This record gives sequence, C-alpha cells and structure tokens, in this order.
Amino acid sequence: MSGAGRFISFEGIDGSGKSTQARRLAEGLGAAGRDVVLTREPGGSPGAEEIRALLLTGAPERWSAETEILLFTAARRDHLERRIAPALAAGRTVICDRFADSTRVYQGATRGDLRGLVDQLHALTIGREPDLTLLIDIDPETGWHRAKARADAEARFEDFGAEMQARLRAGFLALAEAAPERIRVIDGRGSEAEVAARVARAVEAWEAAAP
Amino acid sequence: MSGAGRFISFEGIDGSGKSTQARRLAEGLGAAGRDVVLTREPGGSPGAEEIRALLLTGAPERWSAETEILLFTAARRDHLERRIAPALAAGRTVICDRFADSTRVYQGATRGDLRGLVDQLHALTIGREPDLTLLIDIDPETGWHRAKARADAEARFEDFGAEMQARLRAGFLALAEAAPERIRVIDGRGSEAEVAARVARAVEAWEAAAP
Ligand SMILES: Nc1ncnc2c1ncn2[C@@H]1O[C@H](COP(=O)(O)OP(=O)(O)OP(=O)(O)O)[C@@H](O)[C@H]1O
Ligand SMILES: Nc1ncnc2c1ncn2[C@@H]1O[C@H](COP(=O)(O)OP(=O)(O)OP(=O)(O)O)[C@@H](O)[C@H]1O
Ligand SMILES: [Mg+2]
Ligand SMILES: [Mg+2]
Repeated sequence: MSGAGRFISFEGIDGSGKSTQARRLAEGLGAAGRDVVLTREPGGSPGAEEIRALLLTGAPERWSAETEILLFTAARRDHLERRIAPALAAGRTVICDRFADSTRVYQGATRGDLRGLVDQLHALTIGREPDLTLLIDIDPETGWHRAKARADAEARFEDFGAEMQARLRAGFLALAEAAPERIRVIDGRGSEAEVAARVARAVEAWEAAAP
Repeated sequence: MSGAGRFISFEGIDGSGKSTQARRLAEGLGAAGRDVVLTREPGGSPGAEEIRALLLTGAPERWSAETEILLFTAARRDHLERRIAPALAAGRTVICDRFADSTRVYQGATRGDLRGLVDQLHALTIGREPDLTLLIDIDPETGWHRAKARADAEARFEDFGAEMQARLRAGFLALAEAAPERIRVIDGRGSEAEVAARVARAVEAWEAAAP
C-alpha cells in the first residue's frame, strides 16, 4: 500500500453479519501483513462511545429523530477526527462496522423523511465517505432471526420487526444503486465462511482496480 | 397576554449577571401573575442536561470545536422541542439563561471562525430565535471578578481570562448591532437591583411596543 490508508465500511440490516464479517476481514488482512484498525459506529473513540451510551440506552422515544441525527453526527465527527483520520494518515487500513450509510437509512428513512437533514449535516461536518463499502445483503427474515438469536443488551435498534427490516434493506440497496463505484453488494446467505470468501474476493477486485 | 407565550433569553459574558437577572425577572413577572418557565442552556430538559454533562466535564480539549457545536445544537433541539415550545404553545412566558447567541459567540468565535457552521446548523435544526434577548453588558474585568468569586464546579468555560472575555463581549455587542429589534443591551454595572430595574424597564417597553 502506498500513501494514505484505505477506509472500508460494512453496512446492512440488523443481523446481516456486519460485525462477523468486519472481524473476519480484519483478521484476514492482518494475517496478510496489513496494519488494520477495526472499529465501529456509533462509537469507536472515547467521546463517541459516551455519545453512543446516550443513544442506545433509555426509552425508544427518548430523543426525537432530529436530535438523534445530531448526536449520531457528533459521535461520527469525534470518531473520524480522533481515530479514523489519524489511522488513515498513518497508512493503516480502517475497517468500520457501520458508518454514515446507516444514519442515512435508519435515521433518514424510518422516522419520517429526514434524508435531506442527514445529508446536509454530513456535508457540513463529516464530508467524507469510506473508500469502499461492503453491503451485506440478506433477506429480512434471516437477518431478523440471526439478530434475535443473539444475546444483546443494546437491543433497541433491533426491535423494529420484519416489515421495518424490509424497508431498511430497500434503503441500503437504493444507496448501493446510487453509488456503485463505492458500495459493493455482498450476498449474505450461507455460512460465515462462504460470506467471508465473497467479501475477500470483492476487496481483492477493488484493490486490483484501485489506482 | 393573548396567543402564544413570549420567549425571552439572557445573554452576556461570564459573570455578567445573566442567572441573577433571569431569576429576578422570573420572580417579578410571576409576582405580576404571569405563568413563567425559568430555564437555562446548555440543558433545560432531561436529555439536554445529559448532553450538558458531556460538554461541561472532562478535559478542555475533550471535544473539537465542531463536535462541541453539534452537541450544543443537539441539546438545544431537545430543550426547544421538549420544554420551550410546549410551554410557549400553552401561553407561558419562557425565560432562558443563554440560548443560541452564546453558541454563536463562544463556539463560533473562540476556536477559529465557525460562525458559518453554527448558523447553518441553527437554520437546519433550530430555526427560531427568542422573541426578546436581554444582553447584560459588563466590562470584562468586572465580569471576570464576579465569575471568579463564585464557587462553581463547572468552571471550564470561565477559565478563558480577561482578554478572551473582551473578545466575547465584542462578539455579543456585534450580534446586538446586527439584530437591534430582538436584542436589547442592558448596562450591567451597579447593584443587582439597579440592573434588575433596567431589565424590567426594557421588558415593559418591549411589551408595550409588541403587537
Ligand atoms: N453467515 C452466517 N450464518 C449464520 N449465522 C451468522 C452468519 N453470520 C453471522 N451469524 C450470526 O448471526 C448473528 C448476527 O451476526 P452479526 O452480529 O455479525 O450481525 P450484525 O450485522 O453485526 O448485527 P447487528 O446489526 O445487530 O450489529 C450472530 O450471532 C452471528 O454469529
Ligand atoms: N449587579 C451585581 N453586582 C455585584 N455582583 C453581582 C451582580 N450581579 C450578579 N452578581 C454576582 O456575580 C456572580 C455572577 O453572577 P451570575 O451568576 O448571575 O452571572 P452569570 O452571567 O450567570 O455568570 P455565568 O456566565 O458564569 O453563568 C454571582 O456571584 C452573583 O451573585
Ligand atoms: Mg453488529
Ligand atoms: Mg449563569
């Protein structure tokens, strides 16, 4: 790798396998000698993790959609400037479990149409996208059952139900269609190893094509 | 009072007497039979108070200026929609100790020129000003000594020094010059009672002129 490091995000509906695949890719690239930072959102830096705690605890209606978007954006700003950007500047590969696309789909589309607000805040205060986004695509029923099977105290965002998961999936696929140069759709069906092989192939193809 | 309630804010440099005068005005209007809500920023609603705790504790460089502006704006949005707007809709008089002008002056002008960012976030997510703002104007030395004399655990924002207070004062006065119909400059010198009498006269004159 020459110059600045690569910034790769994983996206997808609840239980699609993002965290599993982000970890596997980090292990794979690390084994191949790459200097990898594995991180996640919301959170990923000390300040952003404190904002995460405000976002993921308490009653579901604790924050309005607009306040929630501001808090997610504040957390992302902190994460980007304190952790992601310094790592990239040092030539490291950053693998991030969720990034701005999740805010576009979850906050922008599930509590009224706030995509415009999400995009304007992003332009004002974040201003960059991952170099590559791997969208793990799974049917909502499968994702729903995987997520439900998991023990997780921060279950708030998973309590949406199958119909909402279908809307979220459509939202992610629409983003992928609008930004095909950045977002690669990965078939999330099959075993963890099968999905990991698809992810590895997508990353290799992307790196081979990258300047 | 007919229709929606009035929204009055107090602004000024550290130690100028905002909290003292906000309390006195609330007491005065309450004694005159008005239904008054006395509140403050950052904070003023349960969610916003939690964001306040993130803002006012920890090391001074804990947040970048941009993250800080996002957090102040998130707190303001929560305070406005959960406390201020409902009170105004019920015809109550809301007296707020600091509001958006403080963000314009403190965050917008003391850590680089971020006035544009503050104003754009305000337009996107807050979108309203107080009906009347009382700017308590005091020379920085006096304010500095008043503030320093006070026991206050949340002293972070008061540790700026006299030179910074002079810049803040100039920032507030520039806002008043740009929005004379909303912002009244109150001479903050003299005793609490003297300043309170000036505040009361300014409010009466404003209400007499209001439609
Ligand atoms: N290919 C797979 N086949 C079966 N189970 C899987 C597969 N991938 C992941 N899982 C399991 O499904 C659950 C959800 O996976 P994971 O946590 O990686 O998803 P996620 O997309 O990160 O979920 P969330 O959106 O809740 O963070 C986990 O228990 C994981 O072990
Ligand atoms: N007119 C006055 N003369 C002398 N002391 C005053 C006067 N008004 C307020 N004080 C005292 O000065 C200190 C600061 O006043 P106050 O807390 O009202 O200012 P403030 O503008 O709210 O400060 P901060 O910006 O720190 O919140 C307090 O101890 C208060 O009792
Ligand atoms: Mg996960
Ligand atoms: Mg005060």
